[in-house]
Amino acid sequence: MAGPLEGVKILDLTWGLSGPFGIMTLCDLGAETIKVERVDGGDMARQNAPIIDGVSLYFFSVNRGKKSVALDLRTKEGKALFLDLVKRVDVVAENFVPGTMDRLGLGYEVLRKHNPRLIYAACSGFGQTGPYRERPALDVIVQGMGGIMSITGEEGGPPLRPGASLGDITAGLFLSIGILSALIEREKSGLGQMIDVSMLDCQVAILENAFVRYLNTGEVPQRIGTRHPVITPFQAFQTKDGYIAIAVGGGIEQWALFTEKIGRPELLSDERFGDRTSRTEYHKVLEPILAEALKEKTTKEWLAEFESIGVPCGPLNSIPEAAIDPQILHREMFVELPQRRIGSVKVCNTPIKLSRTTSKLERGAPDLGEHTREVLSGLLRLDEAKIESLEAAGVAASSAMP
Amino acid sequence: MAGPLEGVKILDLTWGLSGPFGIMTLCDLGAETIKVERVDGGDMARQNAPIIDGVSLYFFSVNRGKKSVALDLRTKEGKALFLDLVKRVDVVAENFVPGTMDRLGLGYEVLRKHNPRLIYAACSGFGQTGPYRERPALDVIVQGMGGIMSITGEEGGPPLRPGASLGDITAGLFLSIGILSALIEREKSGLGQMIDVSMLDCQVAILENAFVRYLNTGEVPQRIGTRHPVITPFQAFQTKDGYIAIAVGGGIEQWALFTEKIGRPELLSDERFGDRTSRTEYHKVLEPILAEALKEKTTKEWLAEFESIGVPCGPLNSIPEAAIDPQILHREMFVELPQRRIGSVKVCNTPIKLSRTTSKLERGAPDLGEHTREVLSGLLRLDEAKIESLEAAGVAASSAMP
Repeated sequence: MAGPLEGVKILDLTWGLSGPFGIMTLCDLGAETIKVERVDGGDMARQNAPIIDGVSLYFFSVNRGKKSVALDLRTKEGKALFLDLVKRVDVVAENFVPGTMDRLGLGYEVLRKHNPRLIYAACSGFGQTGPYRERPALDVIVQGMGGIMSITGEEGGPPLRPGASLGDITAGLFLSIGILSALIEREKSGLGQMIDVSMLDCQVAILENAFVRYLNTGEVPQRIGTRHPVITPFQAFQTKDGYIAIAVGGGIEQWALFTEKIGRPELLSDERFGDRTSRTEYHKVLEPILAEALKEKTTKEWLAEFESIGVPCGPLNSIPEAAIDPQILHREMFVELPQRRIGSVKVCNTPIKLSRTTSKLERGAPDLGEHTREVLSGLLRLDEAKIESLEAAGVAASSAMP
Repeated sequence: MAGPLEGVKILDLTWGLSGPFGIMTLCDLGAETIKVERVDGGDMARQNAPIIDGVSLYFFSVNRGKKSVALDLRTKEGKALFLDLVKRVDVVAENFVPGTMDRLGLGYEVLRKHNPRLIYAACSGFGQTGPYRERPALDVIVQGMGGIMSITGEEGGPPLRPGASLGDITAGLFLSIGILSALIEREKSGLGQMIDVSMLDCQVAILENAFVRYLNTGEVPQRIGTRHPVITPFQAFQTKDGYIAIAVGGGIEQWALFTEKIGRPELLSDERFGDRTSRTEYHKVLEPILAEALKEKTTKEWLAEFESIGVPCGPLNSIPEAAIDPQILHREMFVELPQRRIGSVKVCNTPIKLSRTTSKLERGAPDLGEHTREVLSGLLRLDEAKIESLEAAGVAASSAMP
């Protein structure tokens, strides 16, 4: 599979979505990723719907390409095996409630003694410090606390959750950026370090525009439908047969072409609509006029019209529509990967394309313990008898299917 | 300021939000970032509201810590200066419509001849290849086309835009991951490469759950308010005085404690609600029951009740409420940075905390051309007379204020 991160080894103790998504991003780029899972059931996401013949597509989607080793870290021998693995990898990643690894006797201060070059990446709901550090958090909790739900929704309507698990996904991305930065720093210092990423902090980071507006002007960001807080029009409108998104963010020339095209040239001379900022100020006057105009043609007709004058626009696709979009297909954003029980699973590709060390997804997600024997014999040089005794004692487990 | 990326030099030609946000993430971690801007007005985001005394807070928020050099890349001398800079940096980043840099004679194939170790990072609406490659795109266009707006909203309501510019921000994050990966690879190969990130591809990547469900089961993801597609309850409910987010994703024990706590113990024996998957199947039966129960107490009362039994929960904060949250403040997620005209601006901190090479934000965003002289004399060793003649010819420009 190659990729720019070939040679980087990661022990991935993460579960659920945040950590797994972040580490998958590195795995997609070629990092050898060994998922270390509980012997009894493994990553809880293995139970998440949809499940086909025992295979969780939810789990598969964010763990493709990884190996799975099932180890009981509560046992003395399990800990010893884990520490042996730690000596042979570059990164350990976990997303437990802070304190969990310490209670296992496997916190960063212990692990760094076994491997001073180790990068220890911890992702948690609220971070390793602070009054909420020991509270559990899941996606909707941090999306609620960070403020994004308060500004997602219709004007006058209830707060809503964006249609993706942004609490998890953005934390995963920031975690992976932290890991790569620490790997780069290690080239100079020879030393590892600990990375502490909080899902709630990441919500604040992605809401920079909302917080900076509020903190410096006192303006309270609100729910505004599909609008943009400071540029107008930059939103979706209903057409004769659906919806279209348009973004008229350019100068007066673009606005002139746009108003002409929608048959409302008189808007051009109205000074309330002179630039994108004043159009935002008077959006309640402008929007009904635009809404009426845009209902006159179909989405496809408008797309052709606006493309001809260079106004950024696009259809509001459903997931099935996006799944057959020619550009998305051209970019090979969907890949079919093997799964030994159900044949194959279609997943989304990495969006990071490199010209020279292109990575290619080839492997599916592992069954629990699918690579226990491979890793214990390969990386740790344990012999067959030793592995069998570990499995007999319940310290390690291999998946039933060979 | 230090940070793990100290010593990494980036020429940042990006404008707007996607590229600037991604490169800021690296700048926050210590990369020396030189923004190269047009002499006439620079980054268009400098005109975005809110603006205080000529300072765009929108621009400031995603360009703090960077230097600004104003160069006219359309002139022969401007190109020569740029190529001299290219020889002295590790990364060039741009987010123009594909083909723009080629038309300037400064595409990757040209730049790599001047610096074979160069990492050239391109972010665009649709990517460097494919049928839409030359189309302009802004955030709302790719959020519309990728499908997230089709699954953000109330059941039966219109599609909505999530309250953050996820089209831009996620593309910026994936771009920065690509850059760091290429830097790591360069340690071995000694060679740079080009990174091609499309905002639309990134939308697909963050919607992995929705696409994987659709592509493998045919189920069409829908707008579902604050709910989660496969876990229930994992959503917001109204309380006596506001909203609360709860996530009961654990096992039967957690469900038992929860149903007891809300005074609806009879739910526990109802087999339709036996696990989080079957609760999702019967969510239309379950939700009204939970909604009625949760209206009986205030958000604060429920938070105390649910925390006592370990059920993840949190308030639905507005931006002002999140801005005074004790955990967010403890994590120092807001930082006040100097601005020479208006004194200071409050911004959001990086969410990436490292134990050994902690970075600290100290510098504000630059005025246009604020560092032109510093960079031309420092990095390129040009003398005062040369710089003055470049400025007189309009090839370079310095900000008026010293």
